[in-house]
Amino acid sequence: MKLYYAPGACSLADHIALIETGERFDVEKVDLKAKRTESGADFTAINPKGYVPALGLEDGTVLTENIAVLSYLADRAGSLLPDNGMRRWRVLETTAFVSTEVHKNFKPFFSPDADDKRKAEARDILDKRFAYLNERLGDRDYIVEDEMSIADCYLFVTLRWAKEVAKISLPARLDAYYARLKERPSIRKAMETEGIA
Amino acid sequence: MKLYYAPGACSLADHIALIETGERFDVEKVDLKAKRTESGADFTAINPKGYVPALGLEDGTVLTENIAVLSYLADRAGSLLPDNGMRRWRVLETTAFVSTEVHKNFKPFFSPDADDKRKAEARDILDKRFAYLNERLGDRDYIVEDEMSIADCYLFVTLRWAKEVAKISLPARLDAYYARLKERPSIRKAMETEGIA
Ligand SMILES: N[C@@H](CCC(=O)N[C@@H](CS)C(=O)NCC(=O)O)C(=O)O
Ligand SMILES: N[C@@H](CCC(=O)N[C@@H](CS)C(=O)NCC(=O)O)C(=O)O
Repeated sequence: MKLYYAPGACSLADHIALIETGERFDVEKVDLKAKRTESGADFTAINPKGYVPALGLEDGTVLTENIAVLSYLADRAGSLLPDNGMRRWRVLETTAFVSTEVHKNFKPFFSPDADDKRKAEARDILDKRFAYLNERLGDRDYIVEDEMSIADCYLFVTLRWAKEVAKISLPARLDAYYARLKERPSIRKAMETEGIA
Repeated sequence: MKLYYAPGACSLADHIALIETGERFDVEKVDLKAKRTESGADFTAINPKGYVPALGLEDGTVLTENIAVLSYLADRAGSLLPDNGMRRWRVLETTAFVSTEVHKNFKPFFSPDADDKRKAEARDILDKRFAYLNERLGDRDYIVEDEMSIADCYLFVTLRWAKEVAKISLPARLDAYYARLKERPSIRKAMETEGIA
């Protein structure tokens, strides 16, 4: 497998998941402005939608969309997402929440033409989303029950954006959760490889 | 099972999926402004996030987030989403695309305070998304290969918003696909129940 990524982008979630599952994989950096990969390939020929993550499979197929890529990696490896039972649905629910309600609201912070009003509105929504997640986290180490899942991989990436890009101050438990995950070997390794450690 | 819905909202996708799978279910309408259900219950006690879809399960558990609810319904019934193989991942990929890249870009059309500039920007992005889906659809009847899936349930809802709310003119094949689905018995039934037929 090969993960197409941009440093610190939402593809970092898949990068962490790949390391966590113990699979063998390669990574290739993408220049999202030029739509070129590090080895000079036209990225729009790999993913016509032009964004990361994109996962190249052994047979040449390319899978896109973070929720699909994360679920694929987890089901393939049999880790980070239970096979069945309510915990499976809670992990998918939380992963979908992170994608649709957290990730999406960072858009103004990555758009060169977004004005301050839009950023302020986004910050208000994100404050509410993080308050909800902080409540959900409670005293546990992981966002769904007591085990690391794809939801943690994705949530970590958005908390990093909150701190590094949007300068949002996180509620206390979520902030401590972020600090803990940041020291986790898989996450350190992924961030080192991406050059953002 | 009980589906909490608002007429024509993204919960219509789950309503269609429920009818398609042949499961027994109830529906309860939610007033999203007042956060009250039709029977007078406080909806924020059912889903603290305050939005639909929310699916009440037999044991009292409530599942939220459209991607999770749709996948749950499909896996439970063994239809609308293959158990395994690449088609499963293509359905999840397309469902995630509809959620994160299509649904989310309708936000300005549902926000009372969104100005025309924002609506125009959203329309530009949606035009691109629909062009991509039109290309993907090709001459087939369904958006992923030759079988109805949860991706069609969700895509139908957003095409309806495109036509009825945002007044976007759809590319030809997607427009014909919408017209065909609109006559499908499950979809007619769901729309009648929701009072939007
Ligand atoms: N719907 C996609 C969105 C992925 C996405 O937002 N990718 C960003 C990085 S976090 C990107 O590549 N943006 C560059 C672009 O769209 O040109 C998913 O859920 O995977
Ligand atoms: N992240 C949620 C979003 C659901 C959503 O956008 N629901 C809309 C209707 S389409 C809603 O209930 N809006 C009312 C509100 O948020 O107050 C999901 O993917 O299910």
